[in-house]
Amino acid sequence: MRGGNVMKIPKPVSKRLSMYYRCLEKLKDEGIDVVSSKELAERLDIKPSQVRKDLSYFGEFGKRGVGYHVDFLIENLEKILGIKEEWNIAIIGAGNIGRALSNYVGLREKGFKIVAVFDKDDGKVGKEIAEGIKVLHIKDLDRVVKEKNVKIGIIAVPANVAQEVAEALEKAGVSGILNFAPIKIKASIPVEEVDISSSLRTLTFEIIRKHSTKGKK
Amino acid sequence: MRGGNVMKIPKPVSKRLSMYYRCLEKLKDEGIDVVSSKELAERLDIKPSQVRKDLSYFGEFGKRGVGYHVDFLIENLEKILGIKEEWNIAIIGAGNIGRALSNYVGLREKGFKIVAVFDKDDGKVGKEIAEGIKVLHIKDLDRVVKEKNVKIGIIAVPANVAQEVAEALEKAGVSGILNFAPIKIKASIPVEEVDISSSLRTLTFEIIRKHSTKGKK
Repeated sequence: MRGGNVMKIPKPVSKRLSMYYRCLEKLKDEGIDVVSSKELAERLDIKPSQVRKDLSYFGEFGKRGVGYHVDFLIENLEKILGIKEEWNIAIIGAGNIGRALSNYVGLREKGFKIVAVFDKDDGKVGKEIAEGIKVLHIKDLDRVVKEKNVKIGIIAVPANVAQEVAEALEKAGVSGILNFAPIKIKASIPVEEVDISSSLRTLTFEIIRKHSTKGKK
Repeated sequence: MRGGNVMKIPKPVSKRLSMYYRCLEKLKDEGIDVVSSKELAERLDIKPSQVRKDLSYFGEFGKRGVGYHVDFLIENLEKILGIKEEWNIAIIGAGNIGRALSNYVGLREKGFKIVAVFDKDDGKVGKEIAEGIKVLHIKDLDRVVKEKNVKIGIIAVPANVAQEVAEALEKAGVSGILNFAPIKIKASIPVEEVDISSSLRTLTFEIIRKHSTKGKK
């Protein structure tokens, strides 16, 4: 079934898939029905030949000289990426980042559902951090992960306790971790790191690039 | 000077530079002095030949059969990426995301300094959102950007006012924008988007991939 398709995809390609998906969603929002590999490549800063090769893993979506039908491509990527599934999420850490994430609109409509927020601070436990979400004590992690079928744990604690939290999440049985703590997490389940300073670094390089080429075009 | 080096670098390479830099910082933290292109490539999920080609834009850093000296590579990337510069940042939006960012440790040590936070809500203006940072009224944006030499604006407002804020930031004279609102921003200055759902999408795909190949290795 699903595995059959997924297994064939090389890892570097898999990393680009959510980029394509996100870009296609934007194109759809902009009212664009058909897109060429050149247009997709330009928006994503990769080579058109790379786009054609990546998308060829999923069969013949594009028509030579016409391009890809945005809706059709979105539908197929949704299947491949498991986008139609619902993913239950627990956040560890009821601080500023945990609060921001619990209240982040736009996750729910994409199939990501925050079902629990944990903290070890008794002063925070029991308080409502977002609409309908009361902070739970971290000691209840194992039980709640099982009861609420939590698949993803988000680490929103200080760096010095992040690894310990990752281990607790893995032990509790989550399938993957999104890490906001500025430290590399070691785990045997997939971990995705969110690093704001890395995004800022890309931005500052673009700024430098732009200023250094100013007046040349 | 700086521009001379930067101009020659193709855009796709520039996108990978902050990835290399971040990875090298981690290697350094782990106490690793020398790294091969193969090791770097594995950590970043790209081809070793790509790593060698990318890094060759900056001269001959690596030694055949030995690898790259982590410190030396970090130093050179720091120059190229403008990492030794200090970047003053203003956050627009004193909500949950603005609060989380204002209190985010780890930006300062990387040369990113939050110098002001703005909001249009009189109930928030004047309140301390982080240590030493009081929320300012958005009407003072132009003046403060100039006075405090703000180079980067971070958009942390709801999607429906994000474009409007981007235009105000550009008009005020910032050089780049980091956007947290779940909407594509149009601007003539560089914009970097931070999309949590996109990171979650990459994670869920890795989870699906892992489960579909379970027991095969």
